[in-house]
Amino acid sequence: MKKYLVEFIGTFFLIFTIGCTVIPPNAGALAPLAIGASLMVMIFAGGHVSGGHFNPAVSLAAFIRGKLTTVDLLPYWLAQFAAAAVAAWLMQFMKLPGAAVAFGIGWKAALLSEFLFTFALAWVVLNTATAKGTAGNSFYGLAIGMTVMTGVFAVGGVSGGAFNPAVAVGVTLMGLQTWNNLWVFLVGNFGGAAVAALTYKLVNGDE
Amino acid sequence: MKKYLVEFIGTFFLIFTIGCTVIPPNAGALAPLAIGASLMVMIFAGGHVSGGHFNPAVSLAAFIRGKLTTVDLLPYWLAQFAAAAVAAWLMQFMKLPGAAVAFGIGWKAALLSEFLFTFALAWVVLNTATAKGTAGNSFYGLAIGMTVMTGVFAVGGVSGGAFNPAVAVGVTLMGLQTWNNLWVFLVGNFGGAAVAALTYKLVNGDE
Amino acid sequence: MKKYLVEFIGTFFLIFTIGCTVIPPNAGALAPLAIGASLMVMIFAGGHVSGGHFNPAVSLAAFIRGKLTTVDLLPYWLAQFAAAAVAAWLMQFMKLPGAAVAFGIGWKAALLSEFLFTFALAWVVLNTATAKGTAGNSFYGLAIGMTVMTGVFAVGGVSGGAFNPAVAVGVTLMGLQTWNNLWVFLVGNFGGAAVAALTYKLVNGDE
Amino acid sequence: MKKYLVEFIGTFFLIFTIGCTVIPPNAGALAPLAIGASLMVMIFAGGHVSGGHFNPAVSLAAFIRGKLTTVDLLPYWLAQFAAAAVAAWLMQFMKLPGAAVAFGIGWKAALLSEFLFTFALAWVVLNTATAKGTAGNSFYGLAIGMTVMTGVFAVGGVSGGAFNPAVAVGVTLMGLQTWNNLWVFLVGNFGGAAVAALTYKLVNGDE
Repeated sequence: MKKYLVEFIGTFFLIFTIGCTVIPPNAGALAPLAIGASLMVMIFAGGHVSGGHFNPAVSLAAFIRGKLTTVDLLPYWLAQFAAAAVAAWLMQFMKLPGAAVAFGIGWKAALLSEFLFTFALAWVVLNTATAKGTAGNSFYGLAIGMTVMTGVFAVGGVSGGAFNPAVAVGVTLMGLQTWNNLWVFLVGNFGGAAVAALTYKLVNGDE
Repeated sequence: MKKYLVEFIGTFFLIFTIGCTVIPPNAGALAPLAIGASLMVMIFAGGHVSGGHFNPAVSLAAFIRGKLTTVDLLPYWLAQFAAAAVAAWLMQFMKLPGAAVAFGIGWKAALLSEFLFTFALAWVVLNTATAKGTAGNSFYGLAIGMTVMTGVFAVGGVSGGAFNPAVAVGVTLMGLQTWNNLWVFLVGNFGGAAVAALTYKLVNGDE
Repeated sequence: MKKYLVEFIGTFFLIFTIGCTVIPPNAGALAPLAIGASLMVMIFAGGHVSGGHFNPAVSLAAFIRGKLTTVDLLPYWLAQFAAAAVAAWLMQFMKLPGAAVAFGIGWKAALLSEFLFTFALAWVVLNTATAKGTAGNSFYGLAIGMTVMTGVFAVGGVSGGAFNPAVAVGVTLMGLQTWNNLWVFLVGNFGGAAVAALTYKLVNGDE
Repeated sequence: MKKYLVEFIGTFFLIFTIGCTVIPPNAGALAPLAIGASLMVMIFAGGHVSGGHFNPAVSLAAFIRGKLTTVDLLPYWLAQFAAAAVAAWLMQFMKLPGAAVAFGIGWKAALLSEFLFTFALAWVVLNTATAKGTAGNSFYGLAIGMTVMTGVFAVGGVSGGAFNPAVAVGVTLMGLQTWNNLWVFLVGNFGGAAVAALTYKLVNGDE
C-alpha cells in the first residue's frame, strides 16, 4: 500500500504542475523546465520506496524488464490514473479551464514524437535506475526528469509532449486535449516504453 | 550556536535573492530558477552542519519526524525569522520598495497552493535528507531547491509562492505582501509541512 | 555490437533534439538548455555501456587518451554518423526544412569557437569520465551536457555551436548549414579534441 | 605547474563565456545560466587537480582556511589574471567591443552586492569542497557554479555580478567596466571571501 501511495503523490504533483504551468496565466517558455523538475524531485523523494515511476508506460517497461511484479502492475496504474483525476479536479480551484490545442503538424508526427521520447524516457529510467552498471548513482532523478524536459522542449509543439498515459488522461480531463486523440498517446507511450525495455534487455541482458 | 548561525546565513541568502529577483528591475521570468538555486546551494553548503532547513515549516516537519530536538526548534525559528528581517532591511540599499500584489485568484486558491507545495517541499526534504533509503546521496540540495523552483513556476501567480513562513514575513517586510494575508502562509505552510511529516512516518516508519 | 547500438541511440537523440529545437517553430532562446540536457541524459543512460561519446571528436580524444581501442574507433564513428543521417531523415516528418544560416562573424571566428569549445568538451569528458581523481562520481553527465549548453549559449551565434562532427553533418543534412562550411567543423572539432587529449595526458599522466 | 595550467584553463573558459554571453549579440536573460554552468563544468573537470578555484578571492579563502599553501597563492593568482587577459584578447576575434555600463544603483549597493555574493561563493566552496562533513560528494561543482548564477541573476543589474577579481579585470579589459570601478570589486571580493573563510573556521573548526 505504501508504494501505491508514493506513486499517487508523485504522479499528482507532476500532473498538477503541468496544469499550473501550461494553462494561462502560465510559466510560458519555461514550463518544460518546471515540468521536468517536478518529475525529478518526486523521483528523488519517492524512488527509494516505489521506484518512482509516476507513469503507466514506465511501469510497463519496469514490468517487462523484471523490476515490477505482476501483482503490482495494476495497482500502480490505478494509483497513477487516480492521481491524474485528482490533479485535474483540483485545477478547477486554481485556473480557468484550458483550451484544447490541436496537434501542431498532424497525428503521424505526434505519434512519432510520443513514441520516440517515451522510448528515450524508459531507456533512461531502466539504465539509470535499474542497471548494475550505474548502481548507487545520485543522478537518476536528474536524468529522468530532464529527459521529459528535453522532450517537451523538442516536441511540445507537435504532440503536446506527454510521454505518459496518465499525463495524457490528466490534460484531457483539464480540457487541454480531446478524447479523440487519446489513442495517439496510449499507442505511442506504451509502444515506446515496450521497445525501450526490449532494447534494454538486448543491451544489458537480464543481469 | 553554530547551527543557528548556519540557519541564519542560508535563510538570509534565500530571502535576499527573492527580494533582488522579484522587485523590479528583476530577473523576470527566470526568478524562480534563481530562487530555487539559492536554496539549493545553501543546503549543499550548510546541510552538514544544521540540516539546512532555512524554513520554519521544514523545521517543524523535521521536529515531527524526530530529526530536530525540542531544544533546537525555537532557536531555529528565531534564526530564520531574524534572517528575514535582516534581508528585508538590507534590501533598502539595493532596490526601491516593491509593490504588494494581491493573490491572483483569491485566498482559497492561495491557501491550497501554499499547502500543496509546502507538503511537496517537506516531503522531498524528509525523503532525500533524512531517510535510510537515500542515505549518502549527493542530490538532496538539488531535489529540495528545485521543488521550490517548480512551485514558484506553478503557483507563483496564485499565492506568490513562498512555501516558507520566514519568506512570507520577509517579503511582507519588503512590501511585496500585506500583513492581512500572512495567515494564509502560516496556515498553509505549517499545515502542509505537518501533513508531509505524518505521511512520511506512515510510509517510512520511524526507522 | 551493443556499444555501437548505444552510441547510435545517444547520438540520434542529441541530433534529433537539435533539429526539433532549432528549426522553427522551436524552443527559441532555451534551445541550448534542451540540447545540453539531451546529451546529459543520454550519457547518464548509456555511459556505462559505451562510454557515452555520441561525438566522433570525443571518440578521437578517448582513443588518444587510451580509453577506446583501435578496433572500436571506426565503428563508433560509423554509428555516430549513421545516427546523424537517421535523425535528419526523420526530421522530414516533423518540421519544414530549416534555412541555412551563415556564420555570424566569419569563418575565422567560427573556427576559433569550434576549436575552443570542443577543447572544453573533450577536456571535461576526459577529466570527469576517465580520470582516477574523479572515479565513481555522479556528475559526469551533468558536466559534459552543460559544457555543450554553455558553448551553444556562448558561440551559437558565431559558429552554430556544434562541437561535434556528427552534429555538423546532421544539421547540414537538415539544411541548417552548407556543405562548404563542413571543413570548419571537422578541423575545429577534431583539432580541439586532440589538443584536449594531449593536455589531459600532460596534466594527468597516463594513469 | 600542472595545477597552474588547470587554473588557467578554467578561468579562461569562465571569462571567455562571460564575454561571449554578455556582449551583444548575446545570450540575453539566460547569460547567468551560461556563466554559472561554465564555472560548474570547469570545476568538475579541474577540481581534482587544482581545487578548481578560477578566482583569486576563492584562492585567498582557501589559503586562509589552510587548503592552499603560501607557495601556491601567488602563482594561482598569476594564472587566473593571465587567463583574464588572454580571454579579453581573444574576444577581439569574436565580438565588437562591449560598452561599459555604470553601476545600476551606485557604488555602495555595488560594493554590498559584491561583498555578499563573494561571501556566499566562498562559503559554498569551503563547505562543499573542503569540509569533512561533505567529503566525497558529487555536487560541489553544481553548488559553486549555481551560486554564481544566482548572484548574477540577483545583483547583475547592481554591480555587474563578478564576485571574482579576475573576472573584474577581464570584463574591464573587454570594455564592459571602467578602471575607476575596479577597487569596488577588489575590496568587495577579497573582503567577502576573507570573512567567509573566517566564518567557515568558526563553524567547522580547523578539522
